[in-house]
Amino acid sequence: MTEHTVKAFDADLDHLMKMVAKMGEQVEATFRDAVEVLIRRDDKLAKDVLDRGEANNALHREIESGAVLLIARRQPVAYDLRLIVAIWETAIELSHIGDLAKNIVGRLVAPSGSDVLAGASRGLRRIARAALRRLHDAVDSLVKTDAEKAERLWRSDQEIDAIYSALCRELLTYMMSDPQASPAAVNLLFCAKSIESVGDHVTNIADAVHYLVQGRRIEGVTSPQPA
Amino acid sequence: MTEHTVKAFDADLDHLMKMVAKMGEQVEATFRDAVEVLIRRDDKLAKDVLDRGEANNALHREIESGAVLLIARRQPVAYDLRLIVAIWETAIELSHIGDLAKNIVGRLVAPSGSDVLAGASRGLRRIARAALRRLHDAVDSLVKTDAEKAERLWRSDQEIDAIYSALCRELLTYMMSDPQASPAAVNLLFCAKSIESVGDHVTNIADAVHYLVQGRRIEGVTSPQPA
Repeated sequence: MTEHTVKAFDADLDHLMKMVAKMGEQVEATFRDAVEVLIRRDDKLAKDVLDRGEANNALHREIESGAVLLIARRQPVAYDLRLIVAIWETAIELSHIGDLAKNIVGRLVAPSGSDVLAGASRGLRRIARAALRRLHDAVDSLVKTDAEKAERLWRSDQEIDAIYSALCRELLTYMMSDPQASPAAVNLLFCAKSIESVGDHVTNIADAVHYLVQGRRIEGVTSPQPA
Repeated sequence: MTEHTVKAFDADLDHLMKMVAKMGEQVEATFRDAVEVLIRRDDKLAKDVLDRGEANNALHREIESGAVLLIARRQPVAYDLRLIVAIWETAIELSHIGDLAKNIVGRLVAPSGSDVLAGASRGLRRIARAALRRLHDAVDSLVKTDAEKAERLWRSDQEIDAIYSALCRELLTYMMSDPQASPAAVNLLFCAKSIESVGDHVTNIADAVHYLVQGRRIEGVTSPQPA
């Protein structure tokens, strides 16, 4: 490549990275607001969250076509190719998190479920905060190409597991003591599950960052979950 | 490219396609067995399903590194590049379906939930059959690069929605009439949701196939789900 081509390539890569960082911020804010929609039953915010889902999709498609174009035009190899792949995979994971936010907004709890909702809202906010902190760190590990941070994230999701289990027990107790509360409690259980699932996507992003820097998947190193 | 290079490239592409077709078959069989583990509480089959999960992961990683190598070495453009992307994206979706199968196997219903399980098993088998038929068709649309079949799949998941809604209503009725059945019913609700989610991944595969053939996403054509 000529010096000019190298500079143009770096600028393109930089632009791609900025787009995925922006998508990360947008998805994080959208998800946080989706949990607020659920807890505060805010119709206006609900519409806003769904509108932003469209914007996130558009950004995802832009990153994807940018990545394909860049591979086709510049024919990168080794690290540069892995960087494009990692950005692309991160965008896929972010778009799945956006879908989870949409699912949460779609699960409005009926007024008859007010008590269950009030009881669970603290736990829901807590697990959402923990999940979104991890999401933020995962995107940050990509932007800073920090494989160690990524690997630490990959190995530590016990906090979310613990909050999630406590929330499930709480909601099951509601159901068993007041069967009429079951529909609301089930809705909230699914929301808790959606929030917990953010953790799986964070793990995938962390794995993509590790692959970028080390050239191999974390799973290839050691497998912490024997079958 | 020389004729020799073209032939070698075609052979590599062909190999990649065969791997993703194989992964599709494996994931389909694994998922079907996961639902049987849940319904028949078969410990031996459970272990077998989890072991096959490892094999599916290995195949996913093999497809991924094959795709990256092929892009780096052959520097394909246009259709050839989109084909590699579509195969890769399909492998990602298949691996998510494999994770769903693992989730189902992890949700064993306690003996106290026998009645709920017996009541829901017909619906669970029905929705699993419908979802796996769609999965099979989606992978088939990739192997045959059939964009019309892919678009038909993308536009038709009402059948699964209907079975899923009926199953949810049935399980909620159980909970409300017998609160002690709630833990079992909740477990089965999550399984039903996992099976229903196969449909989302099928939709993504269909979209990838459409992109391969037409060079644009289905969403870009018309959006059937206004926000």
